[in-house]
Amino acid sequence: MIIQTITIYLLKRLSKYIKNLNTKKKITIKDIANVLNISPAAVSKALHDDSRISKKTKEAVKKVAKDLNYQPNHLASALRKGKSNLVGVIVPRTNSNFFSSVIENIEEVLNKEGYHIIITQSNESYKKECANIDTLLFTQVDGIIASMANETVDLSHYEKIKSKGIPLILFDRGENDLNVDYIGINDYDSSHMIVEHLISKGCKRIAHIGGFKRTRIFNNRIRGYLDAIKKHHLSFENDLLIESDLTLEDGRIQMQKLLNLNKQPDAVYVAGDYAALGALQILQENNIKVPDDMRLVGFGNEPFTSLVSPSITSINQHSADIGKLAAETFLSLVKSENLKQSLTKKILDAELIIRDSSK
Amino acid sequence: MIIQTITIYLLKRLSKYIKNLNTKKKITIKDIANVLNISPAAVSKALHDDSRISKKTKEAVKKVAKDLNYQPNHLASALRKGKSNLVGVIVPRTNSNFFSSVIENIEEVLNKEGYHIIITQSNESYKKECANIDTLLFTQVDGIIASMANETVDLSHYEKIKSKGIPLILFDRGENDLNVDYIGINDYDSSHMIVEHLISKGCKRIAHIGGFKRTRIFNNRIRGYLDAIKKHHLSFENDLLIESDLTLEDGRIQMQKLLNLNKQPDAVYVAGDYAALGALQILQENNIKVPDDMRLVGFGNEPFTSLVSPSITSINQHSADIGKLAAETFLSLVKSENLKQSLTKKILDAELIIRDSSK
Repeated sequence: MIIQTITIYLLKRLSKYIKNLNTKKKITIKDIANVLNISPAAVSKALHDDSRISKKTKEAVKKVAKDLNYQPNHLASALRKGKSNLVGVIVPRTNSNFFSSVIENIEEVLNKEGYHIIITQSNESYKKECANIDTLLFTQVDGIIASMANETVDLSHYEKIKSKGIPLILFDRGENDLNVDYIGINDYDSSHMIVEHLISKGCKRIAHIGGFKRTRIFNNRIRGYLDAIKKHHLSFENDLLIESDLTLEDGRIQMQKLLNLNKQPDAVYVAGDYAALGALQILQENNIKVPDDMRLVGFGNEPFTSLVSPSITSINQHSADIGKLAAETFLSLVKSENLKQSLTKKILDAELIIRDSSK
Repeated sequence: MIIQTITIYLLKRLSKYIKNLNTKKKITIKDIANVLNISPAAVSKALHDDSRISKKTKEAVKKVAKDLNYQPNHLASALRKGKSNLVGVIVPRTNSNFFSSVIENIEEVLNKEGYHIIITQSNESYKKECANIDTLLFTQVDGIIASMANETVDLSHYEKIKSKGIPLILFDRGENDLNVDYIGINDYDSSHMIVEHLISKGCKRIAHIGGFKRTRIFNNRIRGYLDAIKKHHLSFENDLLIESDLTLEDGRIQMQKLLNLNKQPDAVYVAGDYAALGALQILQENNIKVPDDMRLVGFGNEPFTSLVSPSITSINQHSADIGKLAAETFLSLVKSENLKQSLTKKILDAELIIRDSSK
């Protein structure tokens, strides 16, 4: 009696399980097994060329599989194996040479090792970044390589990745607090380099249109700017330092603010190239000559910086190296047994590319 | 005896099934059931606030679920329901204002309806495009919106999407042969518009650095160019028409070829803005004045076309409209019962934006 009850219970569960799997009316191993009147296990073994199955059976199974248009369910297989060979990449936006070059280089390294990447963009929104992480976890990625949105302050969505034991590598915009692997450039030193370059050209009042302080890389650029100003005993008022979302539009707005000051600066260092371009537009619209009346420096070395007139001095962020290093860090994480053993922090030295806007 | 055998067989299968699910050592409904000594079905019902379960049991289940850090397996749930709320997007590359603007607009429309997008890029490679499709099918996307790689000729990988009954929408680079929904601009008419604009400026020998004929949009641009040349009885030799991959580098190479001709053209229409920029660089390096000595027109209206000096005349491809229409087409497909009922072909009229390079 007890055995019968258990049997009925188990049969019900099994039939429900099978029914669930068939909702999409996909052909399964079971369908092939039914046609040939052999066990699903035998079908599975035949499809995997198991030596315990005869050549004749294998041929029959493969023929039926083909006839029924059977397609193995890779996702179910990934669920079982816990491995999808997918790596998720989160960027604030794809429409930036820096981020698309990083992506290209991540992909190049990972493809060689049999991984594919899927990309999501946060559009600088914290809410979208949370949704991106859920999406990537949903697709069972084997790892996530990310650069944070401007808006991101709370980090619990990133903690979720860590708590699931999925390798997480941050690049460019990352938080030390998270204690994960990180690849970036030396933002603090870059600011020093820029300020000292402008001083060498005779500039005495250097303004900074920076990013938001809450994002570490932008805070580091601001700190570097302030320390270099202090070190060289330049005049400074709070009006010379402005926070911005660094879009072209905001670069225009903030540059106009600087022009409205009683004492205008003689140089402007902008923490992003698009905003630097907006600033250049405003200067040209106001007939202020660059570099003669005002020197201008951007950040990121977007391709247009060398194409516009005057060409814009900028910082090369080594996007190719960052992408490659991020991918290699992921690979070393999945190969190592103990994830916590090999925390990587790679800070690359940035390169100042001097062009007409600051000559 | 028979019942016992069946029971043992079923128990083995079940235990194997459960073992497989636990490979990643995730907490499952079963673990919660074990702790509370109730059935997994009861746990599931409690977690879904089923009215058949007492308030007390629900509270206990939720407490244990929280204590064990239980996270529902959305992927398994998607497998059962056959719905992931993900839409895959395939682009030749993200580093293009056209494609990133299309992506942005697809995302804006789909997010409002509860869908998230994942992006893959083919880098113009047929092989990568095949891998992209496998990746997206693997992640159980509810639909795919794609623009084809330069290399793509064989379409069986796209047929695979269709055969699985998954909505497929092509934009910009699509093949009529596939008989799926398509959104694009009128490439043939755009070429007519460009040639007639150049004729109105007095040009008599108009060269065309086009894309590869095998890609329909580029073939349409070439056909439009040739027909307009013929219609207006302009001189034409085969040397004036060149196929290119339309990168900046190839734009330089092909422009140099045109300069090496015995009879140079007096205008060049380039089927992509990056290649047009390469052509402009070569012209400037050879001290050929644009537009006085040579007029130049690009295609795509990349942001740099308005920033370089001289600014480049180009075609606005309505990326925002294309993205929105592609997303709306997907939504109408998933809402309609019969996928084949509503085949959409939307061909938008392009817009010629005249700048200094052809004035």
